[in-house]
Amino acid sequence: MLPSSYDSQVCSIARALELVGERWTLLIIRDVFLGVRRFEDLQRDLGIARNVLASRLDKLTADGILERRQYSEHPPRDEFLLTQQGLDLWPTVVALMQWGDQHRPSPHGPPTVLEHKGCGGAVSAHRICERCGAELGARDVAAVPGPGAPPNHPLLAKAG
Amino acid sequence: MLPSSYDSQVCSIARALELVGERWTLLIIRDVFLGVRRFEDLQRDLGIARNVLASRLDKLTADGILERRQYSEHPPRDEFLLTQQGLDLWPTVVALMQWGDQHRPSPHGPPTVLEHKGCGGAVSAHRICERCGAELGARDVAAVPGPGAPPNHPLLAKAG
Repeated sequence: MLPSSYDSQVCSIARALELVGERWTLLIIRDVFLGVRRFEDLQRDLGIARNVLASRLDKLTADGILERRQYSEHPPRDEFLLTQQGLDLWPTVVALMQWGDQHRPSPHGPPTVLEHKGCGGAVSAHRICERCGAELGARDVAAVPGPGAPPNHPLLAKAG
Repeated sequence: MLPSSYDSQVCSIARALELVGERWTLLIIRDVFLGVRRFEDLQRDLGIARNVLASRLDKLTADGILERRQYSEHPPRDEFLLTQQGLDLWPTVVALMQWGDQHRPSPHGPPTVLEHKGCGGAVSAHRICERCGAELGARDVAAVPGPGAPPNHPLLAKAG
């Protein structure tokens, strides 16, 4: 819980952070964007305690950012998909990624690279394709493993 | 401190969140973008405990996101300015603000509105001026109180 004084903040940023301002929350959302949708896969990729992950997923579902879908009946198993509200967090995720790439680069280069699907152009700081000039949304862009991708990168794990 | 498992995340988003993934931290950065730079003013605007604010400001300064500048010698008083690294968090702040405006609107409209300085055009989701088409950076944009601004909005408090 945030301190009650926080509630007095009439600010769109404050209201957004009420929902996604906790670090694990944005890393869960990042993973779902990368296609990691199942509890076991999220738990393995994030290395997060199961009860913490379950509580964050419950909250994200209650807040309308993720939705739960059963992918197996026997045994009952759910996966998590982004709602439209969740998809609309894509600019925030991209902005954080670009900041990290620039100011806290990993030694072997970016772990993940974004490119305009079909076109292959890079994604600018304004989320514009550097090749064709299109304004890009979440569904127009593919995330691919970059030069700094570790062996357990979610995109490599998925392919493997 | 984050759990140690978090350190294993080779990810630019994770590294960015190490620095700014705590809610107060991004609200402090928001305030400095709005021109609230002094300890007493930040404390009043955020309603945050003084020791928490002091520790967040120390960390942001140590991390190179803010820099401290003395504005009074007698008594000695400091203010906080954004470094280039801090200014580069502007796309993240704007993305969170636009998400909040869209998905968690305040009843009287946006508390803060962004406009292209000089031109007056609105700022699109891609941080492009909706009037003249320029790609906008932090220094090109003015934040003005919106229809939902409360009386204690930092921009109104500064003007008063």
